Amino acid sequence: MSKIDNTLTSFIDIAADSDFSIHNLPYGIFSDTKDAADNNKRRAGVAIGEYVLDLAVLEAEGLLSLEGGPYFDQATLNVFIDSGRDNWTQARSTIQTLLSSASNTLRDNQDLQKKALFNQADVTMHLPVHVPGFTDFYSSKEHATNVGTMFRDPNNALLPNWTEMPVGYNGRASTVIVSGTDVIRPSGQLKPNADDRPIFSACKRLDFELETAFVVGKGNSIGQPIAVDNASEHIFGMVLLNDWSARDIQKWEYVPLGPFNAKTFASEVSPWIVTMDALAPFKTACPTQEPKPLAYLNEKDSNNSYDIHLSVELLPENSDSATVVCETNFKYMYWSMAQQLTHHTITGCKVEVGDMMGSGTISGPTPDSYGSMLEIAWNATKPVTLKGGETRSFIEDGDTVIMKGYSEKDGIRVGFGEVRGKVLPALSFDFDK
Amino acid sequence: MSKIDNTLTSFIDIAADSDFSIHNLPYGIFSDTKDAADNNKRRAGVAIGEYVLDLAVLEAEGLLSLEGGPYFDQATLNVFIDSGRDNWTQARSTIQTLLSSASNTLRDNQDLQKKALFNQADVTMHLPVHVPGFTDFYSSKEHATNVGTMFRDPNNALLPNWTEMPVGYNGRASTVIVSGTDVIRPSGQLKPNADDRPIFSACKRLDFELETAFVVGKGNSIGQPIAVDNASEHIFGMVLLNDWSARDIQKWEYVPLGPFNAKTFASEVSPWIVTMDALAPFKTACPTQEPKPLAYLNEKDSNNSYDIHLSVELLPENSDSATVVCETNFKYMYWSMAQQLTHHTITGCKVEVGDMMGSGTISGPTPDSYGSMLEIAWNATKPVTLKGGETRSFIEDGDTVIMKGYSEKDGIRVGFGEVRGKVLPALSFDFDK
Repeated sequence: MSKIDNTLTSFIDIAADSDFSIHNLPYGIFSDTKDAADNNKRRAGVAIGEYVLDLAVLEAEGLLSLEGGPYFDQATLNVFIDSGRDNWTQARSTIQTLLSSASNTLRDNQDLQKKALFNQADVTMHLPVHVPGFTDFYSSKEHATNVGTMFRDPNNALLPNWTEMPVGYNGRASTVIVSGTDVIRPSGQLKPNADDRPIFSACKRLDFELETAFVVGKGNSIGQPIAVDNASEHIFGMVLLNDWSARDIQKWEYVPLGPFNAKTFASEVSPWIVTMDALAPFKTACPTQEPKPLAYLNEKDSNNSYDIHLSVELLPENSDSATVVCETNFKYMYWSMAQQLTHHTITGCKVEVGDMMGSGTISGPTPDSYGSMLEIAWNATKPVTLKGGETRSFIEDGDTVIMKGYSEKDGIRVGFGEVRGKVLPALSFDFDK
Repeated sequence: MSKIDNTLTSFIDIAADSDFSIHNLPYGIFSDTKDAADNNKRRAGVAIGEYVLDLAVLEAEGLLSLEGGPYFDQATLNVFIDSGRDNWTQARSTIQTLLSSASNTLRDNQDLQKKALFNQADVTMHLPVHVPGFTDFYSSKEHATNVGTMFRDPNNALLPNWTEMPVGYNGRASTVIVSGTDVIRPSGQLKPNADDRPIFSACKRLDFELETAFVVGKGNSIGQPIAVDNASEHIFGMVLLNDWSARDIQKWEYVPLGPFNAKTFASEVSPWIVTMDALAPFKTACPTQEPKPLAYLNEKDSNNSYDIHLSVELLPENSDSATVVCETNFKYMYWSMAQQLTHHTITGCKVEVGDMMGSGTISGPTPDSYGSMLEIAWNATKPVTLKGGETRSFIEDGDTVIMKGYSEKDGIRVGFGEVRGKVLPALSFDFDK
């Protein structure tokens, strides 16, 4: 496991509880305006304290020269990521040095700082990668058990394939959106009464799903699975993911081919990709897997998970005080990211740089650690009371959902920032037939 | 319905049974070599008789000048398609005139013909579009009924949502491949014995699925569904699709989140996109929909399907004689492409230019019109005897599957050519643990 160099500090003033310490250095895509209509050029940056460091400027100044570059004067990170692990290592090392107290290059150059450092409050963050493929797994045993208990059979809550493979399904890459994008309440087919025909309606059971997603950093060829002990070489980093879900639409549509309309309207991610290099000091073991997985899923490295604290807050419209409705941890996930990626490719599926692979809802063992309103309010039987007295079983119009995540150890913090999305009312439809 | 101009002929000699009449003019991407390792430049062409007409040459010569172009000196058709319907109409009209007997521009210019016409036997066809998203529907009532009868309950073969919506699921765009690409038999988890744990094995029930797919020609914005009466404006054309399937892997994995590994290793398409303009004369009605669909799926135009004859042939290794194992027709499909596209976007999902939307397996009413080996050999209880005496319940190593399709009327034929794929043996795995 990587050791943390506690002596490393930055010349930039960084709060102790900042997610963006010099040990983190997550990558994002920004433009230096808050006006979304202003088409200022998108380029790559790294978050440091309350600032964004403009990598395109560093590159243009000759301070970040990577094999095969330039890479950072780009609207997505795909080309940089695709350039390979040697460049990832080199970039991290160079940027960390430039930001350190010990290096005078940026520290003592006020003109360069003025050009290269932007206050995060003054920039717009964009989707960090072009996402060729989006997959969602279902790898929290607690979540799968909760859902199985509510909707199937409490005595056989887990389906028999669940402990044998990281169950997953293909999502919709075109609706992966970045934090801050409003989400229109979806409309579609619901079936409120078992004996009647379905109706067309706005979703009445809109939910979040607290997830992380990993970003594929290296693809494979079609027909050539990725071996589980090599899988970590194919993973660039992680983001937070709110996989918005329409529970009532899902319930009616999902048998036999799985979730479709209920899950394709918005999958919202945090703007900063935290690299696996930054997360390495926070490695931990997945829960014991019983039965032992089949050989193709059997990892040599049991230290295959990460200790990442996660939370969800709900902020109703016209309220200034969010309520924490969930606190959990990534380390509860039963299946590792390496196992997910290997399983994804075992029949020969090709994965590509920028693909996002969602963890599935991350629920912990206790009700305050459940990762969806469906579970927190237990299928609307235990509504949650928010600060100010409102109650929630699902998400209402005007609500903002905020997810946060960070790892912390020995006084060093490496965090994700947040993914934040507000729900707008459903469209009105006029079917004039 | 569009009328066919029977008087329109080409100066090129075209066999009466050619799929590629002057009424067709399907678009593809080719390079003028049979050596796949030779990286000759990919560009757009149109099939005419036994030839490919090089559109990049026509464009460079000033004979095909479209608003906003050039469009055809490109490795995919996405930019041309994205340029909009006015350009589709203009290009079709210009190319049809250039190829007609009545126009002397190409007819009397031997040098230009030499530069712009290639024998199809001498070129390599590539995937015609970059495919941002791949979706597969399940819209044949006969197919859904057959599968439900075999695996669920013959008395309730159709699930209750089937007649209410065009059921579909997200597929994997990264493994959409072009005709002629070999397919490695996938390996994965099978569960041959209900009481035992699953095993890792090569697939033993490899199958084809006879499908078509439509290519999205115009996208929508996230959150903004496409109205069913506008949906046809968003469809550029169609291809044949063999959606390779691993039935044994599917059976064990697909509850509750749908097919995943069983369907993500290869979705093979024909190289020529036949435009909806070319197919317009062959419009026909979908089967009567009972109950009448909800308003959002209720089309004003009942002439919402196409009469397209489809067939599947099996060619075993070392045989020179293929056996037709299925003959069916696209017109049996219960849900229209417009209904599929509208349903896909009803909760706000964004579709993009180049997206492919598979029809689902196209089975007709009789056993000789079933679109998969699963149905043809009825779950391996009625093996098919091929010419030469071999039998098949599923696809064996070395087998080539060939799908063909065409529309024909008043002596005019508009066809797809073929999608052809050969199965190679499974990889051998060595899990050294």
